[in-house]
Amino acid sequence: MTAPAATAPSASGDIDRLSSSVADRLSEVNALILEHAGSDVAMIPAIADHLISSGGKRIRPMLTLGTAKLFGYEGDGDVKLATAVEYMHTATLLHDDVVDESAMRRGRPAARMIWGNQASVLVGDFLLGQAFKLMVAVGSLEALDVFSRAAATISEGEVRQLAGAKNLSVGEAHYMAVIDAKTAALFAAATAAGPILAGASAYRPSLESFGRHLGLAFQLIDDVLDFEGDAGALGKNVGDDLREGKATLPVLLAYARGDAADRAFWERCIERGDVEDGDVPTAVVLVRSTGALDEARRRARGFADRALQDLSRAPACHMRDIIADVVGFAVSRLH
Amino acid sequence: MTAPAATAPSASGDIDRLSSSVADRLSEVNALILEHAGSDVAMIPAIADHLISSGGKRIRPMLTLGTAKLFGYEGDGDVKLATAVEYMHTATLLHDDVVDESAMRRGRPAARMIWGNQASVLVGDFLLGQAFKLMVAVGSLEALDVFSRAAATISEGEVRQLAGAKNLSVGEAHYMAVIDAKTAALFAAATAAGPILAGASAYRPSLESFGRHLGLAFQLIDDVLDFEGDAGALGKNVGDDLREGKATLPVLLAYARGDAADRAFWERCIERGDVEDGDVPTAVVLVRSTGALDEARRRARGFADRALQDLSRAPACHMRDIIADVVGFAVSRLH
Repeated sequence: MTAPAATAPSASGDIDRLSSSVADRLSEVNALILEHAGSDVAMIPAIADHLISSGGKRIRPMLTLGTAKLFGYEGDGDVKLATAVEYMHTATLLHDDVVDESAMRRGRPAARMIWGNQASVLVGDFLLGQAFKLMVAVGSLEALDVFSRAAATISEGEVRQLAGAKNLSVGEAHYMAVIDAKTAALFAAATAAGPILAGASAYRPSLESFGRHLGLAFQLIDDVLDFEGDAGALGKNVGDDLREGKATLPVLLAYARGDAADRAFWERCIERGDVEDGDVPTAVVLVRSTGALDEARRRARGFADRALQDLSRAPACHMRDIIADVVGFAVSRLH
Repeated sequence: MTAPAATAPSASGDIDRLSSSVADRLSEVNALILEHAGSDVAMIPAIADHLISSGGKRIRPMLTLGTAKLFGYEGDGDVKLATAVEYMHTATLLHDDVVDESAMRRGRPAARMIWGNQASVLVGDFLLGQAFKLMVAVGSLEALDVFSRAAATISEGEVRQLAGAKNLSVGEAHYMAVIDAKTAALFAAATAAGPILAGASAYRPSLESFGRHLGLAFQLIDDVLDFEGDAGALGKNVGDDLREGKATLPVLLAYARGDAADRAFWERCIERGDVEDGDVPTAVVLVRSTGALDEARRRARGFADRALQDLSRAPACHMRDIIADVVGFAVSRLH
């Protein structure tokens, strides 16, 4: 049962209206982020600050603040939960970079390159602990339920991804299960926070579904951009995923559609991890010529449309349109 | 304000009475541990089972079950919280072994030696997420408060330990802050769970203090046993801490009390990480001859006494004596 597309909110391509709309609350979130990452163990604020100040767009916390505002919430739980969301995201990035052996994050050296893998693991744990403390301080068992499930789902998705790493036979279902868990689950928790805090539980399923579909669109778009992105804007380079042996949807589709030579190329790059100079341009040609990139783009737009339909089930108002901009922003990153 | 020592419960040297007393509940904990570590991602139950079935004594969950029984709790929250405690402990071990680059754990290869560091990090995260889900299921915000604080404290202690690693100048205060956070905080949460669940909040400070002092005694004794333990019983070898460059209390005391040659020896082993054949026996001689080991033992007994005094503030009953056995058990491991 989806609402007709005609009722879906329209979405502009940028999130400036959302940023302005929650600017005061977002300042409080930024203050709380620094406060709770404080410790007399100097490595903790140093690592937290490195990541948190490195120009992330704060999309997840803005979604929590925006959906709380959409349902007229007036307490301070939105600021705490938005901070918890950003900590959970940051903790995931820290552990992700260790697991992926990534050198860069948002255009800067990954924390592990400066402070080491050990500190990255432990500071990630610390931020996760702080996230739970903040959630407990809000005092909503419903919010705690949603976020603790998200935490377990995210890490289960990460293990699933690791178990299927460097393996082209895992297929699309595996890929979708991974991004549903590791990306969409936190978006869903972030957007469910609004109706939960405001006591508008009847809207929780629609808002949770909105966040989930938005998260799936975001991740698919990220994976498309790895083959066509502007390195400066993303803080990463075209082909990073390929170099890390990640079988993202464009790769899986190109592999399935390719001829024997194509398949041998992907197997060498992804399964044997043997990526040479010139392989990234070849990969870009293959994901384009097989239509894999177009298909991945089409699916990303499909999830974005579903997100807008989910959102159309919330009461129509100016704030709803502003939240819809996040969907437009995600899609606008596609060429 | 401490109760006179004469009123402290007596403590036998083994925990068989506690095991028997909570046997039914502990079976439920064991079942729940396996159930919530289940996943269709095969690596998760494999790693969890490897650690959880490897002969840990379940002391922390038994303390939660025992203290719940002490205050007459009759629901099923004790089983859920005891399971959460064991998951938190297991997650810490997984991450610890990655950080310490340990090869062995409880006499078996560490999980990271079989499944790798990456899986150990991520499965630790998963178990922590499951722990929070179980706590949320109990529905006690007070319990959630205690356990989320413990989680943040534990990881802060781990980062503190890492920041002071391979450094003999950190001193005793640093060592005590580390073990207070990384070991005592979880014992304190485990023993606070009883009065919290039973609604006997007036007893929470005494029981929390009991757990904390018991945890400090346990860790000090562990660190003493690294220089004199029975490798089979501990599942580790004499000198493991030395080989990992850990400046435990016996080392810090022996360093402070040693002559120039002693200090050069400790600096080579701990600060430069250069441990050669024959160094472990030399270290054992030095911690003995300087009285460092005796002093560490004395302090461990001091914390054990304080734990018994804390416990004496709970209502006198058979169950209180049985819980006191855990203190006796800890001390009995000292030669």
